[in-house]
Formats: sequence, structure tokens, C-alpha cells
Amino acid sequence: MFDFEAALKDIKNKGLNRELRNLETAQGPYSVIDGRRMLMMSSNNYLGLCNDIRLKRAAIESIRKFGVGAGGSRLTCGNFTLHRELEERLAGFKQAESSIIFGSGYAANIGAISGIADKSCVIFCDRLNHASIVDGIRLSGAKLVVYKHCDMDDLENKIIRYHTGRGLIATDGVFSMDGDIAPVDRIVKLAKKFNLMTMVDDAHATGVLGENGRGTLEYFGLKDDVDINVGTLSKAFGVEGGFVAGKRKLIDFLRHRAKSFIYSTALAPHNIAAAVEALNIIETGQQARKELAEKSIWLRSKLIKRCFDVPRGVTPIIPLMVGNVDTALKFSMLLYNEGIYIPAIRPPTVPKGTSRLRISLMASHSYDDMEFAVENLVRFGRKLGVIP
Amino acid sequence: MFDFEAALKDIKNKGLNRELRNLETAQGPYSVIDGRRMLMMSSNNYLGLCNDIRLKRAAIESIRKFGVGAGGSRLTCGNFTLHRELEERLAGFKQAESSIIFGSGYAANIGAISGIADKSCVIFCDRLNHASIVDGIRLSGAKLVVYKHCDMDDLENKIIRYHTGRGLIATDGVFSMDGDIAPVDRIVKLAKKFNLMTMVDDAHATGVLGENGRGTLEYFGLKDDVDINVGTLSKAFGVEGGFVAGKRKLIDFLRHRAKSFIYSTALAPHNIAAAVEALNIIETGQQARKELAEKSIWLRSKLIKRCFDVPRGVTPIIPLMVGNVDTALKFSMLLYNEGIYIPAIRPPTVPKGTSRLRISLMASHSYDDMEFAVENLVRFGRKLGVIP
Repeated sequence: MFDFEAALKDIKNKGLNRELRNLETAQGPYSVIDGRRMLMMSSNNYLGLCNDIRLKRAAIESIRKFGVGAGGSRLTCGNFTLHRELEERLAGFKQAESSIIFGSGYAANIGAISGIADKSCVIFCDRLNHASIVDGIRLSGAKLVVYKHCDMDDLENKIIRYHTGRGLIATDGVFSMDGDIAPVDRIVKLAKKFNLMTMVDDAHATGVLGENGRGTLEYFGLKDDVDINVGTLSKAFGVEGGFVAGKRKLIDFLRHRAKSFIYSTALAPHNIAAAVEALNIIETGQQARKELAEKSIWLRSKLIKRCFDVPRGVTPIIPLMVGNVDTALKFSMLLYNEGIYIPAIRPPTVPKGTSRLRISLMASHSYDDMEFAVENLVRFGRKLGVIP
Repeated sequence: MFDFEAALKDIKNKGLNRELRNLETAQGPYSVIDGRRMLMMSSNNYLGLCNDIRLKRAAIESIRKFGVGAGGSRLTCGNFTLHRELEERLAGFKQAESSIIFGSGYAANIGAISGIADKSCVIFCDRLNHASIVDGIRLSGAKLVVYKHCDMDDLENKIIRYHTGRGLIATDGVFSMDGDIAPVDRIVKLAKKFNLMTMVDDAHATGVLGENGRGTLEYFGLKDDVDINVGTLSKAFGVEGGFVAGKRKLIDFLRHRAKSFIYSTALAPHNIAAAVEALNIIETGQQARKELAEKSIWLRSKLIKRCFDVPRGVTPIIPLMVGNVDTALKFSMLLYNEGIYIPAIRPPTVPKGTSRLRISLMASHSYDDMEFAVENLVRFGRKLGVIP
């Protein structure tokens, strides 16, 4: 009936089998993985906050006071004063009127989209948007119209062709597997022109892009021009959870209609306490953000000089294109054997034929760390014919 | 376009507006809510583990070692040895071959269902199943066939009518708003007869039902007769998260195909450490479970004697039927003013016309606590005409 064995065999035959690596120490520029100290170049811990002593203190203090679990959903008995405090702070941070916390970025995206949209809506979705946006659209029953990656002409054509009344343009701010930045300024203009709502999933930009780390909107000099401004607490923030910032009426509405919010236990108070502390640090983290961007520019340019297919850019996510699944896996494994952890990203996470190494940087990586990585990338890139 | 203001006004006019109460102390039989010490009769913290010193110690120790965040998804760089350890322990606890942890029960249900099912499937769903099961079915694209609550004749008729090949029967183990137990023994028999898969969401039974707290299956003397055995870490466990236990091939498959697993940051290691400690306590918690069941039987019988519409049963979830939205709200508010926290549950969480007070017990509630609640329930029940 459901033949999982055959399905798993098929996955394996295609080289798409996934094995879990086990971390034995905290997430950092170096972590012990399966017994071995590795240079970690795959983490979303962009500002090193996962293991920051200030967050650890805040979480520990909160556990002493409030325990380890919320005990209920936000709407029943799991809403702590801390949740409200963080929501107010996040709204201020994102220059929005209000915000609502979800258990994860995935929950925020599916909750927000399926909360507001139904089959009477059309949602225009960048081809490389995160899976959680696509799942949100599917769950909502809205018509899904995919436009070419960051292609505003294609988006406009599709709006003209498919837009009938209620509609939304949804995009990642920074694309998770490509590290490029969506043209949010132009998306906002198109949305205004055609009277569409806008949604930006700023999971990888929150805390990272813009002078004050507010994300993609700040990067483009926008303020509250996007209706649904999604962020995460699990990447630059170093903790867990996701959130949506926006107008008060939108957030109030989501509190009544976003099922992943209503029907989930609230995040435990100590996670919230740690996230509040993370926000304190992020709001004054101009220096760390500047260094992170400089390191990304430096590493990209080194790799491009060595003929790797790597795009220019400023975000800490650097895709090194390989194409073939097997080559990407071998490449990753050779690096692993040298003590460098850069996983191969394969379908279904990326489109077929675009398997890659996905490097991601932390502010705490040193130039020596990056030199060491470049040296080995070149060595094995040549061996595998990825570069001449 | 999207008129959230009008929608909110409509929600308010129907008495379905939701206000958040703020907890200022840990979840327990008494908590301070909005500045006032309240008898908490609404929590999922069935065994009192949310504020247990052993869990707190385990979480604090883990934060010191591993920080506050995982820094990545399980499949990239957020998988800690702890995750694997807990998954092995949970499999043993549920007498299954393997298990997989999700960020929440909601994520487990939508991930598991949309991971295995597609539009070629038919899923038979109890009318009162948790919203996350319904969302999982919607997201999967499978045909949704709803059967009458716990009605095995209706289920069999619908199977005969709609079953075409690949199918699944999905049920809550203990229904979250009604506290009754699904006839899982009979569901398993029907599934065998018609060659269907089975799924039980045992969020409210895990740690609570059965001699060893294994849940609804143990309650019925079943072992591994259910294919997809869902549990949560946020209720009796007192922490955060959800999981699926089952055959190794199913779990391996979900690791490759459950999007809410693949595309979410892993639960932070300290939450896992606390959950491991919770499992240690649950596995030896026969006494607490026995007391909890006795208290539930006692309270139900007291309420029935006073003519309340309350079902007999053994689970800690006790619905006190009111019917009308306004009466339920007033009832809850009068109790609140006396220092008793029992929220009114209204549509869309329960079907129209079945608004209720939902009492839930913790092992740590005393008989005096319950006497005090009964006294006030009777007083205000009379005042509002809920009882004669």
C-alpha cells in the first residue's frame, strides 16, 4: 500500500539519501562532530549567539524562575508576560505596529499564509522561495503562481495574466540556498501598482542585513512597506522560533486565525528570555554585521578568482555551484575528511542539476579559517574537475 | 482587498474575540496571572513537569555545555547527539522501532501526513480530530473523509464507500477538547480488515494513559499495532516539541520527506535534555498517573452529581458543556474573578453550539483545590442557568 522500503531504495539510488551528523559541542566556528573537531561552515548562527554567555545567562535565569515549559498554547494558559514583551520589542525592531511569535519560521509562514488566504486568492511566489512558503500557499488553497527567480518582468506579466482581486506577492528576503537578495524595492512598487499584498520571509536577513539588522527592508531603505514581515529567532538570534511583524489589525487577525499559532504550545519562556537578550545584542551589533559582510565579500572574491561558480554578494550564504549530485557529495566528503564541514545541498532542497556546496559564514570566523577553507576547496575542486 | 478590520469586527460581534492572559510565574496548580494568584485548571502540564527541579537542572546543565540554540536543521548542522539519544529512548518508550522529533505536535502531524500522503490517498478523519491533523490532510492533497466522532459503524460505511487503494485512518488518542478516548482497538481491526494505515495523535495520552504512560495503545493492551504513533513533548513531558514513533522504514522515510522536519531549525539541545529527564520520570511515574486518573474520576462524578453535563472518564481533560458562547464566556469570567482559571472554549476550536468550560487537571492538584472549584462552578452554574 505505502511502500516505504521501495521509496527509500529509490532515494538511495538517486544519491539523495541523508545521514545525520551528530554535534557533540555547542554550535560555533568550530564544533566537535562525530568525535572530531571541525571547522563549521554550514551554520545559521551568523552572529555567534547560539553559545553567547549573555543569552545563556538569560535562559538559565528564566528557567530558575519559570521552569522549562509553557504548559499550554498562547490562547489558553501558556502566554507569559515575556511573550508579550518580546512581541513588542520585535515590532519596534522591525518598525512595525505589532508582531506575533510562532514556534518556528516554518510555522510562521504556513500560519500567516493559510491564515489570511483562501481559494479566492492568487499568490505570486518566487521559484526559489523557501518550502514553508510553498506549503503555506498549498495549505491555504490559494492559486499558486510561480514567477522566475527575482525576475520582475516575469512577475509583472504573471500579475497581469492571473491577478483577479485578492492577491499576495511572497518572497524570501535572502534566499536560503543562494544567498542573493530579493528586489524587495521593486516588488513593493509592483504590489502598489496592482493593489497586492506583500510578504517577505526575512529568516536569513533578520539581524544580518541593514545598518541596524532590521533585514531586507532596511537594506533597501524601506520601512513598513511590506505587509507581512516574517523573521526567525533561530538564525542570527541563535535561539528558536519565528515571528510575523506588521500592522496591528493583521497581527490581531493572525492571532485569531493562524492555526499553527492557535494549536501549538507556546515557546517555553526561557527561549523567549534568550531571544530578548539576543535582540539587545543585535540592536547594537553594527560592528559584527559589518565584519560578517566584509568576510563574505572577501571569501566570494577569493573563490571567484579561483574560477569557482560563486556569485558576488554581501550575505553570509555563499553557494558554490557543482551541478551533479555525486560530485557535490564527493566534494563535501573530501572536505569533511580534512576537518571542514560544508554539506552538499541536493534536490529536493534545490532544483535538479543545481547541487552545490552551501557555505555559510559566522561573524566569528577568522580570515585564517577562510584561507584554510579556500585552500582545500581549490585542492578538491581541481581533483573533481569542478574548476580547471 | 484583505479587509482585516471588518473580519476582526465580525469576530468580536460573534463573541469570538480572544484576549491573552499573562502568566507571571511558572506553570503549576497555582500561577500568578495578570498580577493575581489563580488556581490553574487549564494546563496541559499533567504531571507537573513544567517546573520540576530535575528538568530544570538538566536544561541548565545542557545550556552551559551546548548553548541556547541548535543553529541549523537536523539535516544540516543542528543535529546533536542528544536528539538521537532522545529519539532512541522515545522509540523504546513507545515500543516502536524508531522515532523522529519535530518542533511541535502541530509540526509532527502536518509533517507526517503530508510526508506520506498525496492526492492518490484517502484519509479517514474523526470529526473532532485536532486541527493539525486536518491541516496535514489538506496540505497533503489527499481526499479527506470525515467520520462521526468515534463512530465505528460510520467509519466502516465510509471506508466501504470511499476506500480505493492507499488509505489512512487518523484519530486523536485522547480528544483535546472532550477528553474521551478513541476506540483505537476497533480502529486497528477495521484498518487490518481494509488494508489501511493507522495514525494516532497521542498528544494528551502520552505520559498519562496506560500503566507505563505509553498512551492510548497501552490503555487498550495494544503494542505496535498503529503505524504512525504521534506524541508530544509539551504536555505531560512539560517541555516543547512533538514526535512520531513507528517502524524504522517509516521514520527513515519521514526524515527524507516530512517538510516541517527538513525545513525547520532543530529543537535547541537543552529542550531535548529536559525531555530526556522528563522521560526518566514518566517511565517511573505510575503513582502520579494513578492519582491523576483518580482525581479526574472524583471531579467528574462530583460535577455529574450537581447536574452538570460532564462525561464520565479517566483522562485529565474534563469538558463541562455550556452550549452558548456568551454564557460560556460569562461563566469563565465569574470563575476568574474568584481566582479560578478555566477558559471558555468556543468555535472555531469546537463545533458551533458546543461552547464549554474545559477543565484540565494536574497530578499536583489537591482535593481541596477541586472542592473549591466545584463550589464555585455550582454557584455560578446556577446563577447562569447552566444547572437547575
